[in-house]
Amino acid sequence: MQAKADGQNYAPKGKSEPVVGPGEFKVAAVGLDHGHIYGMCNGLSEAGADIVMVYDQDPAKVEEFQKKFPSAVAARSEQEVMESDVKLVAGAAVPAERCAIGLRAMAHGKDYFADKPPLTTREQLRQARDAVQSTGRKFGVYYSERLHVEAAVYAEQIIAQGAIGRVVSVSGFGPHRLNAGSRPAWFFEPERYGGILVDIGCHQIEQILFFSGAQDAEIVSSRAANYNLKSYAAFQDYGDATLTCDNGVAGYFRVDWFTPSGLGAWGDGRTTIIGTDGYIELRKYLDIANDPDGDHVYMVNHEGEHHFRASGQCGFPFFGRFIRDCLDRTEIAMSQRHAFRVMELALDAHEKAIKL
Amino acid sequence: MQAKADGQNYAPKGKSEPVVGPGEFKVAAVGLDHGHIYGMCNGLSEAGADIVMVYDQDPAKVEEFQKKFPSAVAARSEQEVMESDVKLVAGAAVPAERCAIGLRAMAHGKDYFADKPPLTTREQLRQARDAVQSTGRKFGVYYSERLHVEAAVYAEQIIAQGAIGRVVSVSGFGPHRLNAGSRPAWFFEPERYGGILVDIGCHQIEQILFFSGAQDAEIVSSRAANYNLKSYAAFQDYGDATLTCDNGVAGYFRVDWFTPSGLGAWGDGRTTIIGTDGYIELRKYLDIANDPDGDHVYMVNHEGEHHFRASGQCGFPFFGRFIRDCLDRTEIAMSQRHAFRVMELALDAHEKAIKL
Repeated sequence: MQAKADGQNYAPKGKSEPVVGPGEFKVAAVGLDHGHIYGMCNGLSEAGADIVMVYDQDPAKVEEFQKKFPSAVAARSEQEVMESDVKLVAGAAVPAERCAIGLRAMAHGKDYFADKPPLTTREQLRQARDAVQSTGRKFGVYYSERLHVEAAVYAEQIIAQGAIGRVVSVSGFGPHRLNAGSRPAWFFEPERYGGILVDIGCHQIEQILFFSGAQDAEIVSSRAANYNLKSYAAFQDYGDATLTCDNGVAGYFRVDWFTPSGLGAWGDGRTTIIGTDGYIELRKYLDIANDPDGDHVYMVNHEGEHHFRASGQCGFPFFGRFIRDCLDRTEIAMSQRHAFRVMELALDAHEKAIKL
Repeated sequence: MQAKADGQNYAPKGKSEPVVGPGEFKVAAVGLDHGHIYGMCNGLSEAGADIVMVYDQDPAKVEEFQKKFPSAVAARSEQEVMESDVKLVAGAAVPAERCAIGLRAMAHGKDYFADKPPLTTREQLRQARDAVQSTGRKFGVYYSERLHVEAAVYAEQIIAQGAIGRVVSVSGFGPHRLNAGSRPAWFFEPERYGGILVDIGCHQIEQILFFSGAQDAEIVSSRAANYNLKSYAAFQDYGDATLTCDNGVAGYFRVDWFTPSGLGAWGDGRTTIIGTDGYIELRKYLDIANDPDGDHVYMVNHEGEHHFRASGQCGFPFFGRFIRDCLDRTEIAMSQRHAFRVMELALDAHEKAIKL
């Protein structure tokens, strides 16, 4: 519960649904700066991956990681990981460093799975795309606010079943708890975390593209602000943007660092999907003043008002699909194009943002 | 309940809290095209006004009105109303005709109270401003989605008490039920109803300006679409816009005509107000799959998650204040500048809207 309330250590656990046998898919964790590495490795592990190795410059972080994943041997260097027989490198380094680790992993013939944001600049995006092209390796991204949320998986299923007709609008709200005192220095430095529209905005862009069923979108408008954290002048505690998808769906998202102390989760994340015949509202991490547990799917259509609890219902199919994609060289879990295009749009939003 | 579900006949009733004695504030209703006239007259009547006269070209509408307000004598012409001793003319004619009635009322020394949207073009806005200037009369507007919603009144009170700190963001969602079969022809004609961003967008702009505590704002971006009503090609069933307020507050709103048949109210209207120390979510007309009744105020701050039911708690102070404003020539209920500026922004949003 504390981890849930803190947010940066929020690491969902799901059902064990292996898609590979023991030893068939070896993973190393490289870069433990963000607690998301635990969610990433939980998901991979539940889908059958073996977390066999770990590396970080900070031995304390490695030791902590090994408590959760005792099977992971501490590598003496990143190079040792790169020269090992792991198939996938999973990393949650400081955002600005995530791409470089991926480039090295791909150069060594490994697929890569980066925490979001997987990169923070256009140059990194260009390098990542080039590396995918030249090496044929994968650069996956942990867009956790959809991939690791059962309410979102449930929504995907009922939308596909036609529950709300044709989707016309997708809105996402991603408030986060700041926990300023427990954050490392890089968290507040734009050139290292990427800015709010990149860092946590990319989650929302990913969901807008996904739930709209669009192949592409453009940023119509975007804004960013530092309303209240004057002690970190370059930090941004608020951002929003409107997107128009290539299939005409209207997207909007808002992200912020204003989750108040009294909320029983790290953020009151919501996604609202409006269709021609109904709408869905996801209350992802709790249902304020109603239920401290998450994964609430509210759906209203011509038949009535419905409330589903998705927790424990769907699991997290992304991870097994991603492992199979790595082994089978398919793109079932997520296309490479989508993973990168989301970041390109996040960079667009960041660069054109009006400062409030 | 049916009226609530239908929407166009939704006429809130509140407590009787007269601010004047019998005969002290006489009102005539002119223009009964939209059912909002009932909400307007309910509010005025509960605050002590006497609804003494009614006029519409359609005798059936007059007869219907007299069932609810038996004290209202049917005038033979609009001119008879204008030459009577009523202090205020309240009107819900077809939107494009509302301003002209107001101009005539003001020319006859009466104040005017128009349903929203009170006008549909820049020329009407110019005429209305000029008439206020030259006659010294009032041109009030029934922005019902704030003024006639106890949850909104409650929010106003707790924000003023500092419950969520300084407001940084206001978002409004105004889905409406179409009821296409029961709508008159003018409802679908843009030059008569004004377009979605004028017609129902103005409610949202009013709330963004009000809850942000701003004096002014600008439209950053806006969009409109006809996603699903191809039989009325010129109609718009979706609109949204981002506004930046003059005090830096970020505003966004979305309006649509997609309320599905299964919803127990005419629309799942929401307003989310984010402050530096907490946030408020209004679920105005129901709490989907939880409570068919409305006026839910959810508030999360550093102390915890709170759920207040505002129904019956606050009443609708606007109406008494507006009556006193008319008698005392004050601007306590709403400034004339605000009432008109909201419409100017709605026209801005309409004119610059990207068509999806």
